[in-house]
Amino acid sequence: MKQKRFILQESEIPTQWYNVQAEMPNKVLPFKNPGTGEKMGPEDLYPIFAKECCNQELNQKDTWINIPEPIREKYAYYRCTPLVRAYGLEEALDTPAHIYFKNESVNPLGSHKINSALAQAYYLKQEGITNVTTETGAGQWGAALSYAAKLFGLEAAVYQVKISYEQKPYRRSVMQLFGAQVTPSPSMSTKFGRRILTDFPNHQGSLGTAISEALELAMSTPNCKYSLGSVLNHVCLHQTVIGLEAEKQMAMAGEYPDEVIACFGGGSNFCGIALPFLRHNFNGSRHTRFTAVEPTACPKLTKGKFDYDFGDEGCMTPLIPMYTLGHDFRPSNIHAGGLRYHGAGAIVSQLLKDGFIEAMDAEQLEVFKAAELFAKSEGIVPAPESSHAIYGVIQRALECKKTGEKKVILFNLSGHGLIDMTAYDDYMSGNMVNTTL
Amino acid sequence: MKQKRFILQESEIPTQWYNVQAEMPNKVLPFKNPGTGEKMGPEDLYPIFAKECCNQELNQKDTWINIPEPIREKYAYYRCTPLVRAYGLEEALDTPAHIYFKNESVNPLGSHKINSALAQAYYLKQEGITNVTTETGAGQWGAALSYAAKLFGLEAAVYQVKISYEQKPYRRSVMQLFGAQVTPSPSMSTKFGRRILTDFPNHQGSLGTAISEALELAMSTPNCKYSLGSVLNHVCLHQTVIGLEAEKQMAMAGEYPDEVIACFGGGSNFCGIALPFLRHNFNGSRHTRFTAVEPTACPKLTKGKFDYDFGDEGCMTPLIPMYTLGHDFRPSNIHAGGLRYHGAGAIVSQLLKDGFIEAMDAEQLEVFKAAELFAKSEGIVPAPESSHAIYGVIQRALECKKTGEKKVILFNLSGHGLIDMTAYDDYMSGNMVNTTL
Repeated sequence: MKQKRFILQESEIPTQWYNVQAEMPNKVLPFKNPGTGEKMGPEDLYPIFAKECCNQELNQKDTWINIPEPIREKYAYYRCTPLVRAYGLEEALDTPAHIYFKNESVNPLGSHKINSALAQAYYLKQEGITNVTTETGAGQWGAALSYAAKLFGLEAAVYQVKISYEQKPYRRSVMQLFGAQVTPSPSMSTKFGRRILTDFPNHQGSLGTAISEALELAMSTPNCKYSLGSVLNHVCLHQTVIGLEAEKQMAMAGEYPDEVIACFGGGSNFCGIALPFLRHNFNGSRHTRFTAVEPTACPKLTKGKFDYDFGDEGCMTPLIPMYTLGHDFRPSNIHAGGLRYHGAGAIVSQLLKDGFIEAMDAEQLEVFKAAELFAKSEGIVPAPESSHAIYGVIQRALECKKTGEKKVILFNLSGHGLIDMTAYDDYMSGNMVNTTL
Repeated sequence: MKQKRFILQESEIPTQWYNVQAEMPNKVLPFKNPGTGEKMGPEDLYPIFAKECCNQELNQKDTWINIPEPIREKYAYYRCTPLVRAYGLEEALDTPAHIYFKNESVNPLGSHKINSALAQAYYLKQEGITNVTTETGAGQWGAALSYAAKLFGLEAAVYQVKISYEQKPYRRSVMQLFGAQVTPSPSMSTKFGRRILTDFPNHQGSLGTAISEALELAMSTPNCKYSLGSVLNHVCLHQTVIGLEAEKQMAMAGEYPDEVIACFGGGSNFCGIALPFLRHNFNGSRHTRFTAVEPTACPKLTKGKFDYDFGDEGCMTPLIPMYTLGHDFRPSNIHAGGLRYHGAGAIVSQLLKDGFIEAMDAEQLEVFKAAELFAKSEGIVPAPESSHAIYGVIQRALECKKTGEKKVILFNLSGHGLIDMTAYDDYMSGNMVNTTL
């Protein structure tokens, strides 16, 4: 019997995260204070995030950062996740390529977001914080943080992008079941929300707006900090458990990826799978190609510009060096709510600028066709976000079919789509349209 | 770090199912032809089910039945599933008991039903059948069969109990994504459905009704057979992979269960976890206690009578020796759609009659309280059905707290509840009521 899944024992959960910042040839540029234009240090971020996360955010020195045991203990609730050989998809495509995916969907909340949520909740609890706020798009991050907050004894308040709040009511229910307060954004509960709703009464929400509201709530609430699910360097750091496990598992399969592919919203799942492999490219020992797949409707990597910009619509964050479509960019209402963000994290932006990674964009309808093929051949209903990666994989695998190359393609299945069935209903009804810029 | 999950490699997927029928002290009574009252042989069932399943159904000779390699290959898409120590739940209950669960929710469709769906679809395909019909309650079985049919190249038609079709639209979408035809039952597409709807225009559906419709469609369609997701002996047989794996994993944990608990609809997940352990009770080498937990609203084990009865409302099946509430019993609309069946499978019925297993019933509101506690302590949103098992576990664990006994309790988490969030909304809204007889 051909081996389908490559499984690691709990004892093989990584003990350290990989901090790419220490090894990047060109370092990530500093965050800047929007008022003074001055470079920011970790302590400037302390009022917003867990202190340890701020230290990690700007750490360009330590290649490996220890994972505290209490976090590893919670990782053990679902890690290590399986690496899977996609024989079914290979057959459906009739490709000589070998396709593997890291299945991050097999955890209690169904997406990779939990890997950083647990770390952030732990560090907040450690420093005596009692309340945490955040934003969420499709709800994967909000659900993960609600869960992590409950496990570590924090109260959570989540601003969910209004269009997703309405399109995906199940994720709201999941957050509420874990005890979180969930508010559709823009809302009347913050000054910024009220301003937006006054100017644009039908505003459907965006991650940039929800971040502003969550930040405002955190800064105006005692003993409360804010937590972000993507974009930032420390979030990408926490996600490297994905790639570190995958590297061991690829070795179990006796292969090494020629291509690594992930969907792209702010960078967390892409960095998670890519960075641990990318490090072998830095010293030239490997020549893997890395591709981030973003929606055509929100193409910061393929059509944005590299510049300092705010991370939120309300201009409350530091200025971040990023590929951006502008902090006031309003993406159309694609179903992949988690990819509707105007900018790319600083690490990915620098790596793209320096040619270490590539980007491609994908139209919504093509993405759902890819998702359907994957569901029917591998039996897993992928999240609309993750389906962007599948789209990219299919392009590469079909190239291999033309050339006859037996490339090894690895992608990250960042989440399942069982709570996104309204999106599939839209697709199956034949009503789905491509939403371009 | 305390070990949380016990993981088997793919190579340890069982190669044989355990056929309890060969070892039961009192054999299961024969099925009877309702017209003649005569005992039925396998060939009498051939027009309905896959021939190999009919042979398995009445096999009281072979203790072990080989699992064909093509089925094991598909099992490898998600098996072996983890055995998990529920430290979080233990802590929340402050119990000295050691609680373990077999996590059957971590497969692409989120419930154990897939274990038999793959086997049945394989056998149907092998004998040249092209179409399969079935019924489904909450949709777990229908989704599993739709998936298995797609993997093995069969066309599937599913009758879904109307109340679940409306309460759980996501499962319908999942079935449709896998290419199945889904019809709410009772429907106007069968003679039986039309008769029911004429007499009871507001009939909310039941498994018994949906079975009749699916059977009628199968018998009136060329090259089409019927497939059932629970109750029958061959379905229970296929599910024994759960307990066989769990037995190895309990040994990895250095323990053996004093208590085995599962929810109960028709018997498939209960048999799956229980029978491989029960065999050690037969010869007296172990003394494990087995408890099936059923809803108070559908209490065939605790309040039904042991008798020959039909498996469906339309009286199309053979007569089955079972604990039954009567084939025309109409359960109230509890959220655990998969447990709304009037009868218990023949194996479980005989075992209960002979005192090898026990049953308890649980009120809906208490079940959801148990589910909430489990979600908050273990991070997994359990299916409403599986939450009945959790309710039972909590009762036993609290008994241990009183007595100080360090009992080892094992239960089957037969599925997750991420597609059942409307049920949780009902619970969280405070509107949920207990629906007794």
